[in-house]
Amino acid sequence: MDIQYGREGVQIDLAEYLFTRLYQVGVRSVHGVPGDYNLVSLDYIKPAGLHLVGNANELNAGYAADGYARIKGISALVTAYGVGELSAINAIGGAFAERAPVVHVVGTPATTAQNSRRILHHSLGDGNFRVFAKIYQNLTCAQANLTDPKTAPEEIDRVIQECLIERRPVYIELPADLVRAKVSSLRLKQLLEVPSIENCPIREAHIVEEIIKRLQTTKKPTIIVDGFTRQYDLVDEVNMFVFSTVYPTYTTPFGKGCIDEIHNNFHGTYMGKAGKVLHVDWVNCSDLVIRFGPLDTDTNMYGFTTLTSRKVTIDVNETSINMQGVLYDNFNTKALFQKLLERIYPLEDVLPPIPYPEYLGTPRKERSALSHPMADGAIDQETFWMRSGGQGLILTPQAKLINSALWLSIGYALAASVGVALAQREMEVKDGIPAARIILFEGDGSFQMTAQAISDVFRNRLNLTIFLINNNGYTIERHIHGMTASYNDIQPWNYLDSPHFFGAPKDDLSYPVFIRRVVNWGQLLEVLEDKQFKQGKGFNMVEVAMGQQDAPESLKGLVRLVCEK
Amino acid sequence: MDIQYGREGVQIDLAEYLFTRLYQVGVRSVHGVPGDYNLVSLDYIKPAGLHLVGNANELNAGYAADGYARIKGISALVTAYGVGELSAINAIGGAFAERAPVVHVVGTPATTAQNSRRILHHSLGDGNFRVFAKIYQNLTCAQANLTDPKTAPEEIDRVIQECLIERRPVYIELPADLVRAKVSSLRLKQLLEVPSIENCPIREAHIVEEIIKRLQTTKKPTIIVDGFTRQYDLVDEVNMFVFSTVYPTYTTPFGKGCIDEIHNNFHGTYMGKAGKVLHVDWVNCSDLVIRFGPLDTDTNMYGFTTLTSRKVTIDVNETSINMQGVLYDNFNTKALFQKLLERIYPLEDVLPPIPYPEYLGTPRKERSALSHPMADGAIDQETFWMRSGGQGLILTPQAKLINSALWLSIGYALAASVGVALAQREMEVKDGIPAARIILFEGDGSFQMTAQAISDVFRNRLNLTIFLINNNGYTIERHIHGMTASYNDIQPWNYLDSPHFFGAPKDDLSYPVFIRRVVNWGQLLEVLEDKQFKQGKGFNMVEVAMGQQDAPESLKGLVRLVCEK
Repeated sequence: MDIQYGREGVQIDLAEYLFTRLYQVGVRSVHGVPGDYNLVSLDYIKPAGLHLVGNANELNAGYAADGYARIKGISALVTAYGVGELSAINAIGGAFAERAPVVHVVGTPATTAQNSRRILHHSLGDGNFRVFAKIYQNLTCAQANLTDPKTAPEEIDRVIQECLIERRPVYIELPADLVRAKVSSLRLKQLLEVPSIENCPIREAHIVEEIIKRLQTTKKPTIIVDGFTRQYDLVDEVNMFVFSTVYPTYTTPFGKGCIDEIHNNFHGTYMGKAGKVLHVDWVNCSDLVIRFGPLDTDTNMYGFTTLTSRKVTIDVNETSINMQGVLYDNFNTKALFQKLLERIYPLEDVLPPIPYPEYLGTPRKERSALSHPMADGAIDQETFWMRSGGQGLILTPQAKLINSALWLSIGYALAASVGVALAQREMEVKDGIPAARIILFEGDGSFQMTAQAISDVFRNRLNLTIFLINNNGYTIERHIHGMTASYNDIQPWNYLDSPHFFGAPKDDLSYPVFIRRVVNWGQLLEVLEDKQFKQGKGFNMVEVAMGQQDAPESLKGLVRLVCEK
Repeated sequence: MDIQYGREGVQIDLAEYLFTRLYQVGVRSVHGVPGDYNLVSLDYIKPAGLHLVGNANELNAGYAADGYARIKGISALVTAYGVGELSAINAIGGAFAERAPVVHVVGTPATTAQNSRRILHHSLGDGNFRVFAKIYQNLTCAQANLTDPKTAPEEIDRVIQECLIERRPVYIELPADLVRAKVSSLRLKQLLEVPSIENCPIREAHIVEEIIKRLQTTKKPTIIVDGFTRQYDLVDEVNMFVFSTVYPTYTTPFGKGCIDEIHNNFHGTYMGKAGKVLHVDWVNCSDLVIRFGPLDTDTNMYGFTTLTSRKVTIDVNETSINMQGVLYDNFNTKALFQKLLERIYPLEDVLPPIPYPEYLGTPRKERSALSHPMADGAIDQETFWMRSGGQGLILTPQAKLINSALWLSIGYALAASVGVALAQREMEVKDGIPAARIILFEGDGSFQMTAQAISDVFRNRLNLTIFLINNNGYTIERHIHGMTASYNDIQPWNYLDSPHFFGAPKDDLSYPVFIRRVVNWGQLLEVLEDKQFKQGKGFNMVEVAMGQQDAPESLKGLVRLVCEK
């Protein structure tokens, strides 16, 4: 980062401008695959202070970029024109749907070649070079084609800024003959900022009072924390709100991990008709439901059975609040909630206490009521997740959970964990964040989709722990249709052979490899107590054998409700 | 196939209609991956007499469908809505560019759910369910959304027919609630036909005479056989023409394999400035160049250096001939050439003999001039391909070569070979075609892209021989840019561990597994003489170690010419 970009009139190469900007907004690793139209631009990655991940294929690179963006708030992906970018498009679709801000840079043929309309490789052969950009318009929130060195810096800034504002992928075409084009470095002097809405104090105070009025009169309130709480940067405010009001609080599948689960007013994931009747009764009888960052999809809402009456519901989004059917929009919700939190402190002066529904129970109590598993007992889905992960998992404070509740692309999690592990390591090293373990729960069918992501793990020496749930096929599909149909079977792989096949580093003491297959609780507990495994360093893979048709009750309920819909 | 579809008034399920039609046009295997929106439709595959391949992921399924289509003239691919179809889109783009007829069936959400505009999983979350179909319009030649049981049979017929006519992919949306909708089976009574153009005899005779006139006056003719000769179904006519005229004949990279290479007038691949000067001189001095099925891309034409003067060139396409700048279109070229071949028989009565340029040499002579390799000599690219494969390979009669000359998507060949091997086996079993070996030449970087295709090979017990060229990374990219750059490195895998990792069948005498690593000519020859390897049954994988920067001269020339362009 030895660039004198502050000096007026300095001309730098276009690719240097691009990667410097990406560095400035927080990118440290660039995901992607080299290709003939992007090779020269890759020379600029290292000098800009960035690391090229070098993924084994583009789809995995796209997923990893998504995972990285969910941790660091921005990521970058480089692919080649046509073939490369289309291989990554499913990942970009998911990032668009679930709001992961990925800057997708596509190395395109030289403008001279494009203008000649000659038939170049990686094109459809019709002389039309705009077709892939046209396709990507459907899945990105801003696009730029850097054909003019004069406007390129402004264009780069515009789309990166849109990426940060919308928290959605953007698309940049970098023609091969523009990579070294000279551009002004002037704009780099000014760091990119995400403009935030300045609330009108009078209007803000009015909305705060409207909310307080409802808090003061509620007898049976419910808070439902959904996943866009993260993307809207409301996690701290929501946690404070949940902690302060002590209202009964649930998450959704997508929202899990947004709030601290150790509180006694946290009652787990609200599953509507797939969960317990007592929760449905409580929520449906609530006179006030506050939903943060809602994502109203069939799967996240258990076939829409978690939907609450508009009459009692306050939906809190990034720049709007829908208060029982009245929409207040175009303001900064984060700032407003900070005001609201000040206003209700100390709580007892403002909000009357409510009789607390202790009978709702908590996940912690449910788990502690489980009997100790028999050492030789088979590992069942229902209690596995309660004991260790998934919706039944009790997350410790600071734990982050990354999952998908809308796009739900099979194989996403494995490849995304490459980006997550990379982002985590960068933050540990550079931002002094305490060390964390990256734990992936992955099914066998999912693993097969994106298996070469393991190669990326080794290549980048990432610390990762995988619980590979081996239940011989697409068990969730079996529960939807075709329980014993052969189309839901898969080829049986030797998953634990991954370190050998994908070339895990050998005899590298700083990168240990741990593999184990477990078929009963005793073996699983042994793994969890293993000294090497507990350290969480290097690559750890535990293959957990489970029944082919076994599924947690909540999943069965979800499938039933979504299919009925 | 116990369907009484001939009986009038019989109502059958829509999915039964669809898969029966696919069977009728020659499909026997359906590539793809199950997903929740397509599961019910999969129940109809087996009863229709079809085999579901069950690929490990959608991109590989798409590539395999492309390979299958190139052998059998049609193929089918099933994916789920959104996530599944986008993962396959790069393969469909390639099939569109290079004309492989794939019927892509996408299982979409129920029409009732789509109409409600509710937010369903696998969508972008905006209630718009048309976005992926809109994307696919760019990469398929016909589309149908089967929302109405009354029109569905006609719609299915229309797009399958377009697929056969255009020899390009088509896109069918099958909503989950329409799978079992009752439709009339009446149309199934009539087999689908590809309408062929009936030539006007007078016009046809005129064009034939125009060509003959040129054949009678040429002193230095050249034939260049390109790859679309296959797609235009002209292979037999072109072979007969080459055999009859005894004109000096070349192929292109894409055209290789279209003609019998055993003839003395076959002079290998015409490489323009990447090849020998004597060939360029001959072609450029020719007074007549007949090009069959040309594909004028940068890579297929060595940076456009194989382009010949319009003044002397006759381009023969499926329904048109461009004769030295005069376009004759909208007629049946195949029928016309059959007439032409009759007209020039016996040859000596019609065409004067030309002095033959024996000095052009033939690939067979070049190869026989090679000295015997030293047993302990390293295996070099230049003579490896001359001795065994690629552009320097001398194909035996009946051999088919499948490659890519426009789309050139890395990883294509491995996954496509699954479809090719499947198609070949079906033809052997059902059509009595003599047994053939499927031989794949694959680079290490390419292998990593689509490695789980090996799983599909084992799952379907396919016979496949792989020469895995291990040269530590993306060597072709190294020659384009970044010879020693780390971005052209890849993670070293243990490729020969594939059978163990992907679960090759064990102790199955009918499916032997052969793996070997070779680092010199002696070891390679030993493999080629191995009894088990020679049988070509089961899975055979030979890892061939080659130099990291080594490349055949023709490839270096190609890279230089394409990059100069």
